[in-house]
Amino acid sequence: MSFAPPRDDAGRRDWLRLIRSEGVGPRGFQRLAERFASPAEALAALPEIAPRVRLASAQEAERELEAGAGAGARLVCFGEAAYPPALADIPDPPPVFWTLGEPGLALRPCVAIVGARNASAAGARFAAELARGLGEAGWVVVSGLARGVDAAAHGAALATGTVAVHAGGVDVVYPPQHAALAERIAGTGLRMSERPMGEQPTERSFPRRNRIVSGLSRGVVLVEAAERSGSLITARMAAEQGREVMATPGAPSDPRAAGCNALIRDGAALIRGAADVLEALGPALAPPRAARPLRPASSPSRPSAAGLPDAPPDGPPAARVAALLSAAPVSFDALAAAAGLQAADLAAALSELELDGLIDRRPGDLIALA
Amino acid sequence: MSFAPPRDDAGRRDWLRLIRSEGVGPRGFQRLAERFASPAEALAALPEIAPRVRLASAQEAERELEAGAGAGARLVCFGEAAYPPALADIPDPPPVFWTLGEPGLALRPCVAIVGARNASAAGARFAAELARGLGEAGWVVVSGLARGVDAAAHGAALATGTVAVHAGGVDVVYPPQHAALAERIAGTGLRMSERPMGEQPTERSFPRRNRIVSGLSRGVVLVEAAERSGSLITARMAAEQGREVMATPGAPSDPRAAGCNALIRDGAALIRGAADVLEALGPALAPPRAARPLRPASSPSRPSAAGLPDAPPDGPPAARVAALLSAAPVSFDALAAAAGLQAADLAAALSELELDGLIDRRPGDLIALA
Repeated sequence: MSFAPPRDDAGRRDWLRLIRSEGVGPRGFQRLAERFASPAEALAALPEIAPRVRLASAQEAERELEAGAGAGARLVCFGEAAYPPALADIPDPPPVFWTLGEPGLALRPCVAIVGARNASAAGARFAAELARGLGEAGWVVVSGLARGVDAAAHGAALATGTVAVHAGGVDVVYPPQHAALAERIAGTGLRMSERPMGEQPTERSFPRRNRIVSGLSRGVVLVEAAERSGSLITARMAAEQGREVMATPGAPSDPRAAGCNALIRDGAALIRGAADVLEALGPALAPPRAARPLRPASSPSRPSAAGLPDAPPDGPPAARVAALLSAAPVSFDALAAAAGLQAADLAAALSELELDGLIDRRPGDLIALA
Repeated sequence: MSFAPPRDDAGRRDWLRLIRSEGVGPRGFQRLAERFASPAEALAALPEIAPRVRLASAQEAERELEAGAGAGARLVCFGEAAYPPALADIPDPPPVFWTLGEPGLALRPCVAIVGARNASAAGARFAAELARGLGEAGWVVVSGLARGVDAAAHGAALATGTVAVHAGGVDVVYPPQHAALAERIAGTGLRMSERPMGEQPTERSFPRRNRIVSGLSRGVVLVEAAERSGSLITARMAAEQGREVMATPGAPSDPRAAGCNALIRDGAALIRGAADVLEALGPALAPPRAARPLRPASSPSRPSAAGLPDAPPDGPPAARVAALLSAAPVSFDALAAAAGLQAADLAAALSELELDGLIDRRPGDLIALA
């Protein structure tokens, strides 16, 4: 149900023109994709079928592409191999997003850690310990680059992989005090945003961003969250997206624990450390829950090639292959078996991933995420 | 499955001799009651059937009765109207216990609040707020007279009703620093113990006492409990007795929260204040869970006389009637309907309760707990 990914800059310009048109959001974009063969066709038809939509001009889209290129950012469109399958699975996936850093990170198993901007010292320390433990267990830590819990989680996961989802443009660091942290994330991690290059975040930007934080992730851990806080919006979105909702408890006398305690009463997993998250999420190697239900931990799993999961997730072949890959190299044959693909189809998918710079070929016919 | 309650001091002496015999515990006492018609018969048979049991002498039992009378304590035997139906329902109910204070309190709906002896100031304050809120909602607060959480809960529930279960004799206050608190509990509340008058508590006394704290109660709330703490033993006993287990969360960095957080992960209700306890336990008026499952809060209850529950709990008539009574007077007819008793049977049960000093008759044929 989507447009075929763009083949060239003209195609990318049309994708951008369509999603940047006033009145076209992620869901509207989806509806147009169900009706038209390409963004160009949708753009041509829109003045007639939706006269109130103000189309973005080709010049505006060109300017955004140039700004992205100037910042060293890369545009990822829905359906491309670099588009994370977990994010594609939410009801309102961003049609496009800009990235700075390592795009392959968002294809690995992700877990979000979010929480209070005014976190206590103990809360920030806990978030850092959690991020470190989850990173060491193979999980990429996603958060929102905010003060407090977010920053602590990103900082502790720099060595193992972290994704920062911006509320404004991917080149706009908010709060500005996190410029150095954002720089380091662009170096070893990934920054991403569905918003136009250069856009300043507004109040509306944050809940919209939060759906991407949870959408990328198999689960969301809340560390310190007051009642009616933004973190609770992320938790609600995670639940709606079928993601695991997890929360760290606190004393009832601590207002920063109120949101987390309420979530736990509502059924969120109580998290005392990384081990509890790993118990809730299952192994990092398995494909996302959205694509395939996790096996219960107690059921015997039949042996599978090279430790890869034994059933391929849904989605386009390149995305399925990417979701199976990690930094640990696997053989072509093991990958074909795990993905359930014929050799020719796997070779085509790998070529696509290679062109996107997402995989490394190693001697001995071995393949790994770049 | 029990001996008929004693009718006179000679009968009470035989009950005491049997349970004070070395080698006869609450379960052994039960087994003897299944086999013999009275404690006197069991005492006569024991030297033959259990030569290793060292019988307590009639003199020892007399001395205990005299010590109790001297301390103003009252002995309650299993099956008597003052014996709480909830406690009768546990697998190893004490055959006898001594009381100081208001014996009728333990017949009212009870909830236990227990926790760390080295409670934080916030934990003690929380326990006190909880006890006050539950007391105002009609619940009697049960605890173990220990330092920290126990003492805070008793102190805050003095005005509404509190029961302290002693680990040693009912006249032995442990820790001794709680002498003034114990004095006040004997004045407006109830102290009780299954152990002999004058006995000092030992290490073994505390878990044995904890089964009575939970056994009296429809639910147990843990406020601050470290791993491997005595409070966790109370929680485990409560679960085995089919009581509601509830716990107050805390930050994972706080060792005093470890036991509570683990219980919540295992399914205990997360408690942020009195309202959460009331939600978990249902209305204070309903008979104990052990006697009759609580109606789900959402199901419509058919109107019942004077707000009394519409189905009588199990047990001997006097105990059933006592469990239905509270400080609020009800009419003879409403009580007969609620207890499912004929007028003659209700009159007999009320006479028994009146002789025990457990009820007040009020003008207009109204009856209330004394």
